[in-house]
Amino acid sequence: MRATVVGGGVIGLACAWELLRRGAQVTVHDPDPGRSAGLVAAGMLAPTAEANYGEEALRALMLESMRRWPAFAAELEAASGMRVGYRTEGSLLVALTDDDHAEVLRLVDYYRRAGTPIEPLTGRQLRELEPMLSPRVRGGAFAPGDHQVDPRLVLRALRSLPIRFESTSIDDLSTVRDDVTIVANGVGAARLTGLPVRPVKGQLLRLRGAEPLVRHVIRGVALGRHVYLVPRADGELVVGATEEERGADTTVTAGGVLDLLRPAADLLPGVVELTLAETLAGLRPGTPDNAPLLGPLPVPHRVDHAVVVPDKPGHSGSVVAPQPHDQRDGGRGRRVLVATGHYRNGVLLAPVTARVIADLATTGATDVDVAAFAATRFT
Amino acid sequence: MRATVVGGGVIGLACAWELLRRGAQVTVHDPDPGRSAGLVAAGMLAPTAEANYGEEALRALMLESMRRWPAFAAELEAASGMRVGYRTEGSLLVALTDDDHAEVLRLVDYYRRAGTPIEPLTGRQLRELEPMLSPRVRGGAFAPGDHQVDPRLVLRALRSLPIRFESTSIDDLSTVRDDVTIVANGVGAARLTGLPVRPVKGQLLRLRGAEPLVRHVIRGVALGRHVYLVPRADGELVVGATEEERGADTTVTAGGVLDLLRPAADLLPGVVELTLAETLAGLRPGTPDNAPLLGPLPVPHRVDHAVVVPDKPGHSGSVVAPQPHDQRDGGRGRRVLVATGHYRNGVLLAPVTARVIADLATTGATDVDVAAFAATRFT
Repeated sequence: MRATVVGGGVIGLACAWELLRRGAQVTVHDPDPGRSAGLVAAGMLAPTAEANYGEEALRALMLESMRRWPAFAAELEAASGMRVGYRTEGSLLVALTDDDHAEVLRLVDYYRRAGTPIEPLTGRQLRELEPMLSPRVRGGAFAPGDHQVDPRLVLRALRSLPIRFESTSIDDLSTVRDDVTIVANGVGAARLTGLPVRPVKGQLLRLRGAEPLVRHVIRGVALGRHVYLVPRADGELVVGATEEERGADTTVTAGGVLDLLRPAADLLPGVVELTLAETLAGLRPGTPDNAPLLGPLPVPHRVDHAVVVPDKPGHSGSVVAPQPHDQRDGGRGRRVLVATGHYRNGVLLAPVTARVIADLATTGATDVDVAAFAATRFT
Repeated sequence: MRATVVGGGVIGLACAWELLRRGAQVTVHDPDPGRSAGLVAAGMLAPTAEANYGEEALRALMLESMRRWPAFAAELEAASGMRVGYRTEGSLLVALTDDDHAEVLRLVDYYRRAGTPIEPLTGRQLRELEPMLSPRVRGGAFAPGDHQVDPRLVLRALRSLPIRFESTSIDDLSTVRDDVTIVANGVGAARLTGLPVRPVKGQLLRLRGAEPLVRHVIRGVALGRHVYLVPRADGELVVGATEEERGADTTVTAGGVLDLLRPAADLLPGVVELTLAETLAGLRPGTPDNAPLLGPLPVPHRVDHAVVVPDKPGHSGSVVAPQPHDQRDGGRGRRVLVATGHYRNGVLLAPVTARVIADLATTGATDVDVAAFAATRFT
């Protein structure tokens, strides 16, 4: 089987690798791999934390992917001969004020109801674990099940695999001659397929010091501002990430940097001494319900521009798919599968996405329950 | 006359240009012109604001240089064919809280006693002049006599003049064969001469937007934090500058950026929307009294390393010049003049410094009163 993957980010490459392992010849097209949303991800693998309350199908998918991560990491390291920075020491939830603490306690309650291990900690207990935390820290919790990976290392390892890379961009799916095409180009999928994928801007900082200020991943709330602090073994501290709805803008702004540095310094005053090594911004692919799009591309979307029809007189119209669709394209025997819309969870969801997409590409079916993530739900 | 200038920053180049105009052949040595302290200066020309209370000799020197700036700028633009961004519309002093306002009012009082025009303004009056200022701004003042120049443009214009440039560094003054040597290498003068010049780190940001948020230079105080905001015609907003005593470190730190962005956003909330285009750090040359060193180099300092003798038993010793000095070096007929230690005032003091140094180099005397700035005062 010959497969074309549109998009060389974490999702596209994970799919490419899985197809490769199943014997496919895979070509990945990405004109600008430096724009991967994974490059502005911290790589926290925390399925309970990231799922919004009530999104049970998404949480189940995250847990399934989480279960797959240890093997995914080990096999990727074996295949590439490169480290991916998989770490399992859990994360600390840290709150500055009473109000921040109330927010963390709601999350603790949610962990408990989800059956995920979580251990509330006082400010003093947190400082015993991480002495550099501010004396003002009110309290928080330890989430032993949270893991992490370094997305840059994951990308580097995936890019080293025997996949064929093309720097040309694919602007029209009908030009692709391969048996299967995987649309995994993040926010770019909107223009290519007409699917409702919107950019959610994330800004992220990399700080550097002579030695690590903390050992744990810190997920903090300070005066209502959320921040995460991810220490790397080399003294780097990743501070992320803003969430901004402002179109395809990828500039680093004064406000973005301020929104990250302020809570970081409130919770961990020593960050002010660190070098600001890098500032960056990227675009996460969000969908109307912020859950991913996994599976066959609905037929009416197989055009460069979405079919927009007026809903009712007086309404502005909507993107519609009037007929039931088929995963095959008009009898030409070419499948088009979609793997985008992973929002903030692309790194976490990469192993299960690769599995689902490779299943669908090779057999047309998968035993992972992805009914809730069909691309048809917005048509 | 042949002259060697050590240091290709604003001071060194201004001296070189003045010597050139007096017929000298000038060579400027600078192995790393990108480290000029002028590159992290905003170019505010505000002699009253920058002088510390009571430093009357320094204030007089600043006023003298301020008077020379219009001609200096005009002649430099004529000589180079380049603009230097000289602007004369005055600056606004802006205070966020009552405490900040009390600080501005002390400065207003100082302006008045110095006979410098200053006009107190209410918060409302400030917002009438600059509608983008925060509604929280408590009050401030208008200083119509403050001017500004763009230090990057000044450096570019000076570097375009017919001066000979050498990228070699001068590590030993006795190797220079020219008639006169000007030591104008900022903090580097300490190692070259043993004079007590220390680095005072300054961090500075360049923000960019589609259109300028303000028209005036803003000198602000917000919750005790000082910041200046200098709009450039092209939509750039320079935000400066920290003042840090931490040796020769030129890293951009999280704390430096935070210390600038926080008061900037407090006073002018629109800055959060601006692109963070550049972060930089440089070293200003400070002296024990933070006034410049202008004039002949004391003889005991004409060595690579300062002469350190124990003061008294139990004391750690000090840098001394035991004998009266002469501006000539042991009969070899070569003068060594010092022009460093300008601290935060290098751009402002460049015209008068160039005049004084060229006077001393060509005639051995100057009619500008620089007795208070003799390098002998620390020996």
